[in-house]
Amino acid sequence: MTDKSAVKPVMTEEELDARHAEKMRKKKAARDKIIATKTIEKGLLIVHTGKGKGKSTAAFGMVFRALGHGQRVGVIQFVKGKWETGERAVLERFSDLVTINTMGEGFTWETQDRQRDIAAAEAAWEKAKGLIIGGEHKLVLLDELNIVLRYAYIDPAEVVRFLRDEKPDDVHVVVTGRNAPEDLIEIADLVTEMTQIKHPFRSGVKAQEGIEF
Amino acid sequence: MTDKSAVKPVMTEEELDARHAEKMRKKKAARDKIIATKTIEKGLLIVHTGKGKGKSTAAFGMVFRALGHGQRVGVIQFVKGKWETGERAVLERFSDLVTINTMGEGFTWETQDRQRDIAAAEAAWEKAKGLIIGGEHKLVLLDELNIVLRYAYIDPAEVVRFLRDEKPDDVHVVVTGRNAPEDLIEIADLVTEMTQIKHPFRSGVKAQEGIEF
Repeated sequence: MTDKSAVKPVMTEEELDARHAEKMRKKKAARDKIIATKTIEKGLLIVHTGKGKGKSTAAFGMVFRALGHGQRVGVIQFVKGKWETGERAVLERFSDLVTINTMGEGFTWETQDRQRDIAAAEAAWEKAKGLIIGGEHKLVLLDELNIVLRYAYIDPAEVVRFLRDEKPDDVHVVVTGRNAPEDLIEIADLVTEMTQIKHPFRSGVKAQEGIEF
Repeated sequence: MTDKSAVKPVMTEEELDARHAEKMRKKKAARDKIIATKTIEKGLLIVHTGKGKGKSTAAFGMVFRALGHGQRVGVIQFVKGKWETGERAVLERFSDLVTINTMGEGFTWETQDRQRDIAAAEAAWEKAKGLIIGGEHKLVLLDELNIVLRYAYIDPAEVVRFLRDEKPDDVHVVVTGRNAPEDLIEIADLVTEMTQIKHPFRSGVKAQEGIEF
């Protein structure tokens, strides 16, 4: 009695190539079929949340990609405006296409003035609404809106209602910040959670130009 | 007998403000203390992995941020070069600072030629090593390297060895792609997993300019 499991035929490079080509052909066919069913074009409500890095960075990546397509983009920075010196320098090269508004003066625990923060958040939200319904911008980034919602500086229910009922169908809105409210996730089209697996802060590495700001 | 739990004193706006200011002051003090202990500056090995969106987009956000600081950046696109028309148009505005190399002709299941893919991956990896040790670039993005590693078009062990032992201390390297090898995660400084919570493909929405490419 031979143990067949022990006799594994070794594939030649040619056989590997042929198997690979067949596998890839099937994958491509399956993928093409799926893509053919996706025909709707619409403005999306996109949320980047979670405790990991990359929420705002990925949103800025989308902003630059849209700019690369010549699309007009609006950016409202609800909180950490002053940190974004790198992005700001790049955005300035596209000043014909970008409208940018920065609320407040950095993370809320650096201001410690609740009334001023509330007033600034309300003003920023008014600007945001104007950009979204204004008809000029294809993509509007509401950077760190979730933090402002978490402190209830503006009414989360009103924000959800506006984004659900008043956002024009051809405008993309991107919302970032950890702790996205459940109601916002509920009405969003695309939600990504950034999860931190490893962070260099743990080993004493400081925030560095180009990486953190 | 009175039920004390029912008698909740309502805080005035002034009391809320004062409580908020105190809470924020403590948060800021705690945060400042933590930041003061982070003094190391070093080139990081950063990995964006997971099945969610935003891995390459966040990496491109970092590229643009670095460019905003006037840093020189190298980009190697291991797989999906042809899709990145938006990013490419923006990068072209920084041609003095950016070195970009695109391997291959799109997702591997569109080529179906394993030997050509292997040769292209090897050539791209040689370019990548040159950019990383060349001394000219502050940040090098190895976009979708993980896919190439998964197919073993280049040897994962050799890639891990190079990034661990030969990456200069002052160069940041960003690796993207789902299924990052465990050994790569092991040696990385910063790892973020992008998790898909909701995707518009599920409701028949197609890939759109500015959002997907």
